[in-house]
Amino acid sequence: MVDEEAEPNETTNAENVVFIGKKPIMNYVVACITSFNRGEKQVVVKARGRAISRAVDTVELLRRAFVKDLEIKHIDISTEELFRAEGQKSNVSTIEITAIKAGTKKPQEEK
Amino acid sequence: MVDEEAEPNETTNAENVVFIGKKPIMNYVVACITSFNRGEKQVVVKARGRAISRAVDTVELLRRAFVKDLEIKHIDISTEELFRAEGQKSNVSTIEITAIKAGTKKPQEEK
Repeated sequence: MVDEEAEPNETTNAENVVFIGKKPIMNYVVACITSFNRGEKQVVVKARGRAISRAVDTVELLRRAFVKDLEIKHIDISTEELFRAEGQKSNVSTIEITAIKAGTKKPQEEK
Repeated sequence: MVDEEAEPNETTNAENVVFIGKKPIMNYVVACITSFNRGEKQVVVKARGRAISRAVDTVELLRRAFVKDLEIKHIDISTEELFRAEGQKSNVSTIEITAIKAGTKKPQEEK
């Protein structure tokens, strides 16, 4: 249950993966928006340890304020084993939120 | 994005709902185990704000260490509006993890 927020790459690993670290949430929201603007149909938001709450915050803010037609496609939780410098093993929880932009729907939803 | 961990009822609201607050994680793990032992087929772990990471920790620890046949049936994230004492409105993210005990499977999984 040790909270490791080692932030492997902080923002983007693959094209459409946003890794949540300790920066302001808006940074990650912008990273998601950028990803969608680049033409990605889905974005995967990943976090571990205490950053998990911030991953949920990111996706919720994105959905509420910026991408109205955002849909949560899948949420996966898991555990990663970390080996610390002292040789100790510790487990850290992880989350992966896959969000898709349902922008390809019929335009009848305007009002 | 204000982290409100107001802990509506701390442990159990309904029979099989475990609300994650600030107690040690093992308390919530035990609450889940108790719920399953009472005969519940599924347990819903709820949290909001910063407690979201702890909800994931709870379910992961439960699955890793105590209920080997635990399956994550569904994970839902959302936003709740909170009205603070000062009359301000703030949004807080929430998570609901529904876990089921797949204990009704064939006993061939023993080894």
